Amino acid sequence: MRPCFRAPFVTPCPYLRSGKSDWGIRLMDNSHDPLPPGQTGLFTDLYELTMAQAFFRQKMFAPATFSLFVRNYPANRGYLVSAGLEDVLDHLAAFHFSQADLTYLRSTEIFTGDFLDYLEGLRFTGSVRAIPEGRLYFANEPVLEVTGPVIEAQMVETFIINQVNLQTLLATKAARCVWAAQGRGMSDFSARRTQGIDAALKMARCSYIGGFQSTSNVLAAQRYGIPPAGTMAHSFISSFPDEISAFRAYADTFPQRTILLLDTYDTIQGAWNAVQVAKELDESGNRLLAVRLDSGDFDSLSRQVRRILDEANLDYVKILASGGLDEYEVDRLVRDDAPIDLFGVGTKAGVSADAPWSDMAYKLVCYDGRPVMKLSPDKVSPPGAKQVFRFQDNGVWSHDVLGLSDESVTGAEEILVEVMAGGTPSAAKPGLPEIRERLEADMQRLDPRFKALHRPPLYPVQISPKLQRLTARVQEQLAEPE
Amino acid sequence: MRPCFRAPFVTPCPYLRSGKSDWGIRLMDNSHDPLPPGQTGLFTDLYELTMAQAFFRQKMFAPATFSLFVRNYPANRGYLVSAGLEDVLDHLAAFHFSQADLTYLRSTEIFTGDFLDYLEGLRFTGSVRAIPEGRLYFANEPVLEVTGPVIEAQMVETFIINQVNLQTLLATKAARCVWAAQGRGMSDFSARRTQGIDAALKMARCSYIGGFQSTSNVLAAQRYGIPPAGTMAHSFISSFPDEISAFRAYADTFPQRTILLLDTYDTIQGAWNAVQVAKELDESGNRLLAVRLDSGDFDSLSRQVRRILDEANLDYVKILASGGLDEYEVDRLVRDDAPIDLFGVGTKAGVSADAPWSDMAYKLVCYDGRPVMKLSPDKVSPPGAKQVFRFQDNGVWSHDVLGLSDESVTGAEEILVEVMAGGTPSAAKPGLPEIRERLEADMQRLDPRFKALHRPPLYPVQISPKLQRLTARVQEQLAEPE
Repeated sequence: MRPCFRAPFVTPCPYLRSGKSDWGIRLMDNSHDPLPPGQTGLFTDLYELTMAQAFFRQKMFAPATFSLFVRNYPANRGYLVSAGLEDVLDHLAAFHFSQADLTYLRSTEIFTGDFLDYLEGLRFTGSVRAIPEGRLYFANEPVLEVTGPVIEAQMVETFIINQVNLQTLLATKAARCVWAAQGRGMSDFSARRTQGIDAALKMARCSYIGGFQSTSNVLAAQRYGIPPAGTMAHSFISSFPDEISAFRAYADTFPQRTILLLDTYDTIQGAWNAVQVAKELDESGNRLLAVRLDSGDFDSLSRQVRRILDEANLDYVKILASGGLDEYEVDRLVRDDAPIDLFGVGTKAGVSADAPWSDMAYKLVCYDGRPVMKLSPDKVSPPGAKQVFRFQDNGVWSHDVLGLSDESVTGAEEILVEVMAGGTPSAAKPGLPEIRERLEADMQRLDPRFKALHRPPLYPVQISPKLQRLTARVQEQLAEPE
Repeated sequence: MRPCFRAPFVTPCPYLRSGKSDWGIRLMDNSHDPLPPGQTGLFTDLYELTMAQAFFRQKMFAPATFSLFVRNYPANRGYLVSAGLEDVLDHLAAFHFSQADLTYLRSTEIFTGDFLDYLEGLRFTGSVRAIPEGRLYFANEPVLEVTGPVIEAQMVETFIINQVNLQTLLATKAARCVWAAQGRGMSDFSARRTQGIDAALKMARCSYIGGFQSTSNVLAAQRYGIPPAGTMAHSFISSFPDEISAFRAYADTFPQRTILLLDTYDTIQGAWNAVQVAKELDESGNRLLAVRLDSGDFDSLSRQVRRILDEANLDYVKILASGGLDEYEVDRLVRDDAPIDLFGVGTKAGVSADAPWSDMAYKLVCYDGRPVMKLSPDKVSPPGAKQVFRFQDNGVWSHDVLGLSDESVTGAEEILVEVMAGGTPSAAKPGLPEIRERLEADMQRLDPRFKALHRPPLYPVQISPKLQRLTARVQEQLAEPE
């Protein structure tokens, strides 16, 4: 296999480690919330608000615990990557209803004046325990648990599921792509075809967590401190009278960062033109960085282009492939040892095309000290606040035990940690590089069987005896009331 | 078939027609852009900016025309719904780089000072021709064409594709769901599992264009003037000691807008509890609106529940089904004549699960008066600015002709219209109800064959002789330069 390509075409980004710019720019800490300023409260389902009014009228303000989990793996997934927590904590810390929100709610004629007055002063005062971002988790394990007065904990459901579901899907997809690439570079090219602007920003973030090197999305690069990357489009070539004029114009503008797109007219002729421009760059003491293939049979074309480059003594020129790639196609090309140094992945990764949704749910597991569950067909899940206990054997995980949060299990790592108490985050935000390193470390402790791209086996998650007994007891009580 | 259900549970929304609130609230006209205020310029791919600097250095400021189109239908699609234009026009009208944007771009050390000075004053000054939102269009037809100085027209590519691609997919999915429902009501319940916040807002908008009656998404309801709708969650039931206490608490709070969720423990027992609460509501002069099924076999359960309700003289109580629904499942239930009055559709519609992406592309078709095209395998498309000419026969469309924008074809409707000139929108924004009516009218003119949910035939789109000749000429020139 060719050596790992540490893309020279990306911009060095000295503030990656610190979360701060060395050039005196602060990353905009207050712009992370994907909602317009002052509109945190209204992004919710109407029923959250009608239920809240019913709780309010019944004077039900007792604490409730909700548990967020995926019941069934999306297709071909053997693990999930925790992602989205930062947005959740930002949202909970900022949660409120503005005057404009309340005016709108009043206009619907659904709500009573005393309830709207109550909403005016409402803030999120609860606590959150969660699996830190970048860590791996498995089906039926809570990635996050919210405990707080039932109205508060219920009302934030819509936002929490939306963000953690999306970011889990995208970070998991990215981790699969990086696993398939086996050390070759990956760049996020998805901004144009993600499902909206928020998803584009989150894909840049999650793909970086997943191990990508860079993103084409400039706003995401700025916001998250990810190295931006980019080449040229077919339209650039077409707007010149011929291909080599376009190549020369680009090389003249960026003599130290030129990547030439070969397939606008004919990839092989494009490669010959690239050789010509590389030689011209060389005469001025510069080096062509790479060429890009964007259509056709990547396996065959990359070999032909590699040969043309090598025969012209341009072994330093890298080959980038993009267009319709996902982990399955990257895996195929890597297994065939196609001489591709860097993959640009876009649409199929950016929408998690083979698994664009999960069944992630936010379930009430405890109200006022009473463990609860529902019995709907195929939707039964154990009651009570939980903890995930993870066991390892010689540095590789053997299995997890899903237990109650107040159990103590010896010899196991407790995966959920407190991240918010009394509405205030418990610790400073980790930087993106730290989250990315957590994932890298976790992937090394996961048996490769579970990383298979097709039909991985189920990672063993056992239910603790204590949780089994509680589940049986609650189920019995519900099945036979009185 | 049961009569169409005009959901009584949705809130009347008097400002739907006018785009203004009757309660003195203005819809927030400046909050439609899904980007943070002042960050319009940076949501782009890095290569748009590097190409721009190369154009700038080469002094290439001539006008270019880019054409936005879908090359191949996503699975099972026989038509596409135009949507997303409003966001595009808002974006183009607001397009600029803020000082913070320029500071960031400077920090990357990619760009020259003179180019950054140029960006500082840059605004979008071009023109746009487009197929109005709500109209149907077909593969290979441009839904939008941008003409302007090449740097401006190129730089807005990422945003334009992102929004029109997403909204086309969602509006098309919604139209398919409404077609499958055959007059029964549809409500958007997707906010929690769309791919991000922007997608949730756009799904509410696009599903309303597609013919849905309401959305659960309160922020979208406020922003777009769509009726909000909602019921109750399983957690509401579980937080009470038993189901009937929960039902009574809700009915007590909302005696005129209660919908009871039946499946928390056992749907049939839930139906008997609903009958009891309906009778109690009746004693106080109120009517239970509906019951909701959220799991199990909807066909069988809806029949059993309908029988229980009818035998208790509650024929006025409607049945709402939700959970895992899409156009395929709705179609099956409607064909079997399941007594379901209203469908709540969420996840699978909100991510367009069977077609989460399209190959929508934004291609340079003309630069400085010269028609251009690329020859990449499977990516050839005709050059030149275009028009879609649509022919009809007795009120039903017979075929379209794709021609050049300066052709005139007698007896045909010209589908693209000017929507922006000199960077200024050409007309006031249409209201959402007007867009929705356009779609309803177009759906009536589309032969039902093309509305089939599975493998519809290809709607005939011919290429005009003039465009065929131009394509052949440009292709020849490119294949044999000199």
